[in-house]
Amino acid sequence: MDSVTRQAWHRLELLGEISDEPGMITREFGGAGMERASALLTQWMEEAGLLTERDAWGNVFGQTPVSGKPRIVLGSHFDTVRNAGRFDGAMGILAALACVERLKERWNDLPFQLEIAAFSDEEGLRFQSAYLGSRAAIGAISGDDLLRTDSRGITLGELIPSGHHDPLPRYTPESLQAYLEVHIEQGPVLENKNLPVGVVTHIAGQTRVRIQFHGRADHAGTCPMTLRKDALAGASSLVLTVEEIGRSVPGLVSTVGCLEVLNAASNVVPSEVTMTLDLRHADDEVRTAALGAIKNRMQEISEHRELNAEWEIVQESSSVACSPTITALLADSAHSVQGTNILLCSGAGHDAVILSRVAPMGMLFVRCKNGVSHHPEESVYFEDFAIAVQTLSEALIKWENAS
Amino acid sequence: MDSVTRQAWHRLELLGEISDEPGMITREFGGAGMERASALLTQWMEEAGLLTERDAWGNVFGQTPVSGKPRIVLGSHFDTVRNAGRFDGAMGILAALACVERLKERWNDLPFQLEIAAFSDEEGLRFQSAYLGSRAAIGAISGDDLLRTDSRGITLGELIPSGHHDPLPRYTPESLQAYLEVHIEQGPVLENKNLPVGVVTHIAGQTRVRIQFHGRADHAGTCPMTLRKDALAGASSLVLTVEEIGRSVPGLVSTVGCLEVLNAASNVVPSEVTMTLDLRHADDEVRTAALGAIKNRMQEISEHRELNAEWEIVQESSSVACSPTITALLADSAHSVQGTNILLCSGAGHDAVILSRVAPMGMLFVRCKNGVSHHPEESVYFEDFAIAVQTLSEALIKWENAS
Repeated sequence: MDSVTRQAWHRLELLGEISDEPGMITREFGGAGMERASALLTQWMEEAGLLTERDAWGNVFGQTPVSGKPRIVLGSHFDTVRNAGRFDGAMGILAALACVERLKERWNDLPFQLEIAAFSDEEGLRFQSAYLGSRAAIGAISGDDLLRTDSRGITLGELIPSGHHDPLPRYTPESLQAYLEVHIEQGPVLENKNLPVGVVTHIAGQTRVRIQFHGRADHAGTCPMTLRKDALAGASSLVLTVEEIGRSVPGLVSTVGCLEVLNAASNVVPSEVTMTLDLRHADDEVRTAALGAIKNRMQEISEHRELNAEWEIVQESSSVACSPTITALLADSAHSVQGTNILLCSGAGHDAVILSRVAPMGMLFVRCKNGVSHHPEESVYFEDFAIAVQTLSEALIKWENAS
Repeated sequence: MDSVTRQAWHRLELLGEISDEPGMITREFGGAGMERASALLTQWMEEAGLLTERDAWGNVFGQTPVSGKPRIVLGSHFDTVRNAGRFDGAMGILAALACVERLKERWNDLPFQLEIAAFSDEEGLRFQSAYLGSRAAIGAISGDDLLRTDSRGITLGELIPSGHHDPLPRYTPESLQAYLEVHIEQGPVLENKNLPVGVVTHIAGQTRVRIQFHGRADHAGTCPMTLRKDALAGASSLVLTVEEIGRSVPGLVSTVGCLEVLNAASNVVPSEVTMTLDLRHADDEVRTAALGAIKNRMQEISEHRELNAEWEIVQESSSVACSPTITALLADSAHSVQGTNILLCSGAGHDAVILSRVAPMGMLFVRCKNGVSHHPEESVYFEDFAIAVQTLSEALIKWENAS
């Protein structure tokens, strides 16, 4: 393995020691950890010979000292959730740095300028508004964002120097040829297929629904089964439908994560149940059809059981497609590096969703242990990281005019 | 309608105005409400010509002034749950009083002495130990009971005058010929059958189980359906089994009242679910068989879904049979008063369960609105109360040697 990749891996460990809180990894937007991490990233980029810049939103950029060429950006984020692992976000930045360093002798010959983007907020830990870093980089910050307050009552607007509240876009369709991101999979598919990396084709569209069943509270000892209006039995029936529809539609993930019985008591027939539905698929039409099927089933259950049901869509986002050209290029490289490849749909959102608004983008996923993410046990093999760096490097070498 | 029954109904209203707390009916064992209610009950019994007595445990008794005859006790309790209705318990005492008053001209001719028992604790509100009143009356108080503390840290032992901690039994197999109790149904069966009263054959045996499913927390967006170990889907499947078994076995009531997803989040596949099972039936063997079927299904679900499951029985009580002779007598009377009769199993416990340890007992249920109980909306028609009083009176008149 080349020393540049080993060094990047070591730096990933160093970055994992930087936190706002002792004993765990937590780096929130604008916090002390991000300040220290930002200084380190800048230093490493400069040591690699890159021209660095830090914007008013805390994003750190490092570009190769060439001019007059279209720009390809390799990036990810370096903020974290609370009590995070070392890999989510940070690994993509270090993979980008290793890749750029490996290509150093080609910087002048490559048909593009390379830039590393280290985004300052993707998780949204502090202001519950995700992608602040990449959104600032494309000039997509809204007035509502600036009014958001953190747990101490500080608004986002107070944190950003005046004159930068509505940032000019660094990346535009004109200034950016492509965006590439390496990220841990955060799921078990690669591990299950025994593959180090896989290429992403889509970032799934998502619908989140809040469902309520209203029945009638009856005494568990005195109300016969036939006279009950059991909200939990109705909800349970829908939980199984959600699972069944998820299993029957390829690529669909369909989850009831929360289910709560209100005023629950062991000797009372449940009268009120609230549950959530999280539905994701690469194809918006497939997701919409599944959503309709689940809603129909909810209504059938309610009628059959004489319950009342409520259905409230609380969030909806469309699927985002990766560039087919970039995807093919990454897949070709992955194939040559690891002997085979797999195409994946990302069930979670990434900075690449935001960058896709201004340029073609592609993503490479890296296997993680047990599919665990957003947790101290998040784990990636060094060998897999190296394969990701190699795959990304080969794709850039083969790059002609992918878009 | 006779004036005695009207007066008893009016007194039931007066009793409903006595409470430990303003704005709701709450009478806990040893509280100010019980003190006032006890004085009123004593007064009413004395006005009816009964010889009254109050024991060290707060029970109030009133007996006809005849001697040398076996004793039949008509009773119920006058404590309540918090924010109770007016009928649970109290109605049985006032029905007994109306009945005894109606029979006043026969007191000397009847082949038994009549006694009204107003028990001081059935609900267990203060010390979470039910039936203190009737248990004291049969001499079944344990040392553990006396050590129980209320929310203010007062022990039951401190509340009871010394010398009465281990009360001598007032009721023994020798001193008690039979116990009869009128109670609201606390369920919807009589309302559903459009009948004022029904006769109880059994008080159901009960098993309470705490069940846990352990799966694996996965990301709702990134973990494919086929790789999940969803504890909530497993629990939902068992909820439906519990309902199905309840429906398929006549007389069985089978309820999941509580279900909790631990560390729930809408975007996380549930890893831990805790749920309760409440199973009741008149026949202990039927209940045991149903319990086994549910446990088997839990194990099948766990194996099939690769979950772990835990099963913990937290409470178990056997079914208590009413005296067939008394039941037949009450059924015959109910039939002559309301034109028909229905036999019921009581899903809830009553003082009659305790009295059944020393004497044959019988219970008469009265229809309540919407099956609601333990709630301010608890409601009974005056006409139904009158039919209960009449049924009980006729049964006593027809009494020969029921046991």
